[in-house]
Amino acid sequence: MNSFGRIFRVTIFGESHGESVGLTIDGCPAGLPLMEDDFITDTERRKGGMQKGTTPRKEEDIPIFKSGVYNKHTTGAPLTILFENKNTRSLDYEKQRAIPRPGHADFVANKKFGGYEDFRGGGHFSGRLTVSLVAAGVVAKKLLSSPLEKDTKIKITASITEIGGEADIEQGLQKAIDAKDSVGGIIECVVSGLPIGLGEPFFDSVESLLSHAVFAIPAVRGIEFGTGFPAARMFGSEHNDAIQDMEGKTKTNHAGGVVGGLTNGNPLVFRAAIKPTSSTPKEQESLNWDTGLIEQFSVKGRHDLCIALRVPVVLEAVTAIVLADLLMLEQRIPGIITN
Amino acid sequence: MNSFGRIFRVTIFGESHGESVGLTIDGCPAGLPLMEDDFITDTERRKGGMQKGTTPRKEEDIPIFKSGVYNKHTTGAPLTILFENKNTRSLDYEKQRAIPRPGHADFVANKKFGGYEDFRGGGHFSGRLTVSLVAAGVVAKKLLSSPLEKDTKIKITASITEIGGEADIEQGLQKAIDAKDSVGGIIECVVSGLPIGLGEPFFDSVESLLSHAVFAIPAVRGIEFGTGFPAARMFGSEHNDAIQDMEGKTKTNHAGGVVGGLTNGNPLVFRAAIKPTSSTPKEQESLNWDTGLIEQFSVKGRHDLCIALRVPVVLEAVTAIVLADLLMLEQRIPGIITN
Amino acid sequence: MNSFGRIFRVTIFGESHGESVGLTIDGCPAGLPLMEDDFITDTERRKGGMQKGTTPRKEEDIPIFKSGVYNKHTTGAPLTILFENKNTRSLDYEKQRAIPRPGHADFVANKKFGGYEDFRGGGHFSGRLTVSLVAAGVVAKKLLSSPLEKDTKIKITASITEIGGEADIEQGLQKAIDAKDSVGGIIECVVSGLPIGLGEPFFDSVESLLSHAVFAIPAVRGIEFGTGFPAARMFGSEHNDAIQDMEGKTKTNHAGGVVGGLTNGNPLVFRAAIKPTSSTPKEQESLNWDTGLIEQFSVKGRHDLCIALRVPVVLEAVTAIVLADLLMLEQRIPGIITN
Amino acid sequence: MNSFGRIFRVTIFGESHGESVGLTIDGCPAGLPLMEDDFITDTERRKGGMQKGTTPRKEEDIPIFKSGVYNKHTTGAPLTILFENKNTRSLDYEKQRAIPRPGHADFVANKKFGGYEDFRGGGHFSGRLTVSLVAAGVVAKKLLSSPLEKDTKIKITASITEIGGEADIEQGLQKAIDAKDSVGGIIECVVSGLPIGLGEPFFDSVESLLSHAVFAIPAVRGIEFGTGFPAARMFGSEHNDAIQDMEGKTKTNHAGGVVGGLTNGNPLVFRAAIKPTSSTPKEQESLNWDTGLIEQFSVKGRHDLCIALRVPVVLEAVTAIVLADLLMLEQRIPGIITN
Repeated sequence: MNSFGRIFRVTIFGESHGESVGLTIDGCPAGLPLMEDDFITDTERRKGGMQKGTTPRKEEDIPIFKSGVYNKHTTGAPLTILFENKNTRSLDYEKQRAIPRPGHADFVANKKFGGYEDFRGGGHFSGRLTVSLVAAGVVAKKLLSSPLEKDTKIKITASITEIGGEADIEQGLQKAIDAKDSVGGIIECVVSGLPIGLGEPFFDSVESLLSHAVFAIPAVRGIEFGTGFPAARMFGSEHNDAIQDMEGKTKTNHAGGVVGGLTNGNPLVFRAAIKPTSSTPKEQESLNWDTGLIEQFSVKGRHDLCIALRVPVVLEAVTAIVLADLLMLEQRIPGIITN
Repeated sequence: MNSFGRIFRVTIFGESHGESVGLTIDGCPAGLPLMEDDFITDTERRKGGMQKGTTPRKEEDIPIFKSGVYNKHTTGAPLTILFENKNTRSLDYEKQRAIPRPGHADFVANKKFGGYEDFRGGGHFSGRLTVSLVAAGVVAKKLLSSPLEKDTKIKITASITEIGGEADIEQGLQKAIDAKDSVGGIIECVVSGLPIGLGEPFFDSVESLLSHAVFAIPAVRGIEFGTGFPAARMFGSEHNDAIQDMEGKTKTNHAGGVVGGLTNGNPLVFRAAIKPTSSTPKEQESLNWDTGLIEQFSVKGRHDLCIALRVPVVLEAVTAIVLADLLMLEQRIPGIITN
Repeated sequence: MNSFGRIFRVTIFGESHGESVGLTIDGCPAGLPLMEDDFITDTERRKGGMQKGTTPRKEEDIPIFKSGVYNKHTTGAPLTILFENKNTRSLDYEKQRAIPRPGHADFVANKKFGGYEDFRGGGHFSGRLTVSLVAAGVVAKKLLSSPLEKDTKIKITASITEIGGEADIEQGLQKAIDAKDSVGGIIECVVSGLPIGLGEPFFDSVESLLSHAVFAIPAVRGIEFGTGFPAARMFGSEHNDAIQDMEGKTKTNHAGGVVGGLTNGNPLVFRAAIKPTSSTPKEQESLNWDTGLIEQFSVKGRHDLCIALRVPVVLEAVTAIVLADLLMLEQRIPGIITN
Repeated sequence: MNSFGRIFRVTIFGESHGESVGLTIDGCPAGLPLMEDDFITDTERRKGGMQKGTTPRKEEDIPIFKSGVYNKHTTGAPLTILFENKNTRSLDYEKQRAIPRPGHADFVANKKFGGYEDFRGGGHFSGRLTVSLVAAGVVAKKLLSSPLEKDTKIKITASITEIGGEADIEQGLQKAIDAKDSVGGIIECVVSGLPIGLGEPFFDSVESLLSHAVFAIPAVRGIEFGTGFPAARMFGSEHNDAIQDMEGKTKTNHAGGVVGGLTNGNPLVFRAAIKPTSSTPKEQESLNWDTGLIEQFSVKGRHDLCIALRVPVVLEAVTAIVLADLLMLEQRIPGIITN
C-alpha cells in the first residue's frame, strides 16, 4: 500500500518519468492556510542545493493543488497535489533495460510486476517520489505549528552528522570525488516541544511508527533512537535516564525521548543511516537479462554523488507526518484550524 | 492500536499482573494443525533458559485455546489464545508506585492514562506480553513451513551476536554480574528461502513493516538491514550487490536481501540493538511523585540481568508475523491449508 | 475480518459450542467505570425475556474481564471480555451435519473453510456471537453517556415495529405458533442528542458505517434511513426537510437525521428488516451431502420462533459502537474519562 | 475517510467546481489492459443519456491517467485518474450561499468544516464525484472479467425497477414534469457468476461491505438483499431457500445469494432506494443564515428531475469495487494479469 497514517493519511503516487508525481492527504483539518509558496523552502532543500555532490535533474517542483484547497485554506476534503515531471530523459533508461542496475529495484520490480512496471528512471520506485513525501511534510509541519494547546511549540530539525564516514561534509564529498565513486551518510533528527504520551505500547509505539515511515525513504538502511546501537554496550545504570521533575524532564536522554513506546516530554532524537548512492560513476558488473551473461556496466543518467545530502528534509517530512497523525489521535490538533 | 497485519492480523492484550495475557489472530487460514505442544519450544526459549542472567518469574505458559481451533486444526475463524498469569507479586509494585522506575513506562503511562493504568509490574507495558507475540509467531512459523509452492522452504533464525559489548555471551554476562548492573546486546535475524518481490516500495517496504513490528518489542533501540549503519561509510561500488544469475542471487549481500523495499531472493538479514535491562540491581535516583523530591531508589521484583537473552525468539516471532502477512498478500499461502 | 471501528475498535471471536465467545475493544478511553453489573440489562434483553417465541438456550452471560479493567475502571489498554458457553448440546449438530440447514451458513462455511470449520451450532456464524456485540455496545453506550461537552445527551432506542407483518407483537407471534412456523419482523432505531457533522461524505457516511455494522447482525435483510424505501415514491418538495433554525432543526425528518452522509442534528432514524428464523419447526427439504439426495428434514436444537424479538438490543449495540467511534474521531469523547 | 477496500483500495477526491475530480486505486494488479476508451460506455451511462429528466451539466469526462499506466497496461503502482471540471457556473452558488439548500449538505458541511468548505455546487459533497466511483468501477469490472479460474464469468447488471412509484420510467418522469417537481426511484443490481464463499461472517459480511459502498452514493436511502423488507413478513419455511445440488444451487433465491454473510453461488440480488432529487424546480422554504429568517427559495443551477436515472452505472461500479476486493482477498484474481 502506498498510504500511511490513521487519521492524517497520506497516499503517494506517480513515476519518475510519468506525467507527474503527487499525493493525497485525507483527514487534514479544515482551515489551514495553504499556498504554493509554503512549499518552496522544503522542495528546494530536497533538491540538495549548491553543494557539490548533488546534481539532480532540475524540476521546478511547483505544487499544483487539484482538490482540497479553496480560498487559500484547506477545506477538510482530500487534498491532492501534483508535481509535474518535465525534465526526463527516458531514452537513457530504455537502452539499459536489459541490465538491471545494481542496488536499484529494477530486477525485483520486474519480477514482482511481471514486466508491466514503468521501468524508466526507476518508475514508481524512484527517489523522485520523495517530493510527494516532502509536500505532505509541509502540510504536516504547518499543522504542528498551528496554535496547539497552551504554549506547545513543536520543532523538527534533521541534519547531516556524517558523510562518507567524515564529520565534515566537504571532506566526505571530496572523498567520493577523488574515488570517482558515491558515498553515504548519517542524518540525525531532533524534535522538541512534544507532549508526553504520544504513541502506544507495542505495535503503535512511536519508534514503530517512525521507523515504518523512515524506511519508506529510499536508501535508508538503519534507524536508531537516542543512544541507539551503542546502548547495547552500556550498563543499565548508565543508560537509564533519571527523571528530574514533575514534567518528566530527565537528566540524560539516552532514550531519545521515547519510553515504553510513548514520548516522555524530552527531545525525540533518532538517526538514520543512508547507503551510498547506488548509481555510482564507477564501472560495475551486473547480469544482462537478454544474454544471461555478466557484463561490465556503468550507469547512465544524472545522479547524485551522495543522496544523503538530500535526505534531511525528507526525514523531517515523514517525522512530521507521523507526529501530526499521533497528535490528532490524541486530540491535540483540532478538526478545524482557526486563528 | 494493539493490532498488526493486513490479512494475517494479530491483536495482543493483557497486563503483567492481570488474570492473563493473550492474543487473537484474525485471518489465519483454516486447516493448519495446531496443538498446545506446538508452543512449548518457543515459549520455553522466551523464558531464557538456564543461562545466568535470566531469572524471570516462572510461568507455565500453557496456551489456552479459546476460539478458532477445532479438532486440532485452525478453523478459519479468529484464533484466541490466553496465557494465565499465576506467579505475580503485585505487592512489590504497590509499594514503589510513588517512584516511577527509570527506563520504564511508569511515568508516561501515568500521564497518558490519567492514573487509571494498571501499573502493577508495568501493566500492559510489560515484557510479559511478549509471550503473546511469541505465540502469534508460532502460528506464523507453521504457516511459513506449510507446503508452499514448489520447493520454497522458509527458515527464520535469530541469534545473539553480542552481550554487554562482548562477542561471548558468558563474558558479557559476567561483566554485568561483576558490576552488579544489567547489560544489553545485539540480536541478528536471518531468513532464508524467501521468494522475490515481497513488500512494496515506500510505506509498505519490507524494512518498514519489519521495523514496525520489531520496535513493538520492548527494549529495542535500533534496527539495521544488511550492512546497516556501516553502509553509510562505504563507497557505492563496494556496497552494491552484483546480480549473478536469473534468480537474482547476488555476489555479496550488503543489502540484507531487500532492494527497493522488496525481497530480492537473497537471505534477509537484520540486527536489533537491545538496551540493558532497565531494572538494574544498582541504586539509582528518581523522582518521588508524592514528595516531589529526588530519591535514591532500587528496583524491587524479579528481573533479568540481560533481557537481550530472551529476545531472539521474540524477534523471530514478529518476523514470522510480518512474513506470513506478506506471503498471504502475495497469494503464496492458500486460504485453506491441506496436506 | 472480525473487527470494526477506526479508533474505538471492536474485535469479536468465539464459536457457538466452543469454550466461550468474547470480544476485545481497543481504543477505549481510560477511566470509564465498568463492572459486571453494567452488562446485565442488555445481556438479559438479548435473551428475549419471557415473550412467547423466544426459547433460546439459557446462558448466564456473565462478563469475565480478562484485560483492560483495573479497580473497576477501564485502563486505556485493550479490554477483553469473555462469556462462557455452558449450555451446549453439540450432539444434535453432529447428527445432522450431512444435511446443511436451509437458511443457515452450514453449506457456505463448509465450502469456504474446507470442512475445518467448527460446525456445531453454526460455529463462528452463530447468533451466539451477538452477545459479544451487545457487550461492546454496553461499553459504547457508557461512553456516549459520559459527560460530553455542554448538555449533549445521546440516547439510543431500538424497538420492534412489526412482527410477522403485524404491528402487534402478540398477534404476530400467534401467527407463527398457529402455523407451526417462524416469523420475522422490523426494528426501528432512533438516536437523539447527536451533534451535527458526524460522518463523512461518500465512503464514511453515517449510513455507510451504520449499515456496515447493522448487516453484521445475522438475519438482517435490509436497512433504510428516515422515510427509506417509500422516499423513492415521493416528490422532492415533499421529501426535503426544511431547515427551521440556526441549530439545523428541520420541519420534517424524512432524511432520518443524515444529510450528505453527515448527522444534521435531528434524530437519527433507521429501520432494519429481520428475516424469519431459519430454524423453523416445519419440515423442509435440503440436500444430503453424503448421499447427494434431497431429503425431508427438520431442524433439531432449541430455536426462537422469532429472532427479531432479540434484535433491538443488538441493533442499539452496533449503533452505539459506530457512534462512539465517530464521536472519538470528532474529538467529542476525551481520551481519559474523568468526572 | 475517502478510501474504501482492503487490497483493491479506492480513494476519491475533488470538488464539483474545483479544477478536477479524480481517484487513486492502490493495489490494482499489474498487466491489466487499460485505455481511455474503456471508460466511455460507463461515463456516458452516468450522464443519464437522452432521457427526459436528466439535464446534467455536460462534461466530456475523458479520463486523464496521471500514474500507474504504462504501455496501455496497469503497472501495479497506484493508478491515479483525473477528470477535469470545465462546465461550471460557480456564480449561481455564490449568490445563494446564505440559504442552505434543503436536502443538500450545505448546512452540515458548513458546521463540520467551519465555513472553509468549498461550497460551490456542493463542493466535495457533490454527485459530480460519482464519476470517480464509475471510473474505479470500470477498472474493477475489467478485473472481474479477466480470465479467472475455470469458467467463472462474473456479470453485474443494475437496472431501474421503479421511477416516481411507477414501473414504467416514462410514466414516472412525466409525473415529475406534470408536478414541476423531482422524483426518486428504485434500482436493482444482479450479479451472476460469483464463486461460493466471498465475504466473512459479521463485520465483513458481503451485505456489510456492499451496503457500506452503496451508501457512499449520494441519494441512497435504503438497501435490501434478496426479498428484503418483505422477508420480514414471510414464514421461515417460505423464506428458506432449499439447496438443490452440490454446487449450492437453491430452488428459490429469497436470500439474494448471501447466507451467513457469504456468497452462496446463486445470483447476488439487491435493491437501493433513491430519494427524489433534492434540487426540485418547486419553490421551497429554508433558513437564510444571514438574516436568521425563513425564506421562500428556489434552487438555481442545472439539475436532474430524477437522479435515480443516473444511478445504475454507479451502483454497478461500487459493486464491482467490493467484489474485486473480495476476490483478491480470496486469491481469485492474480497479482499479475496475463493472457
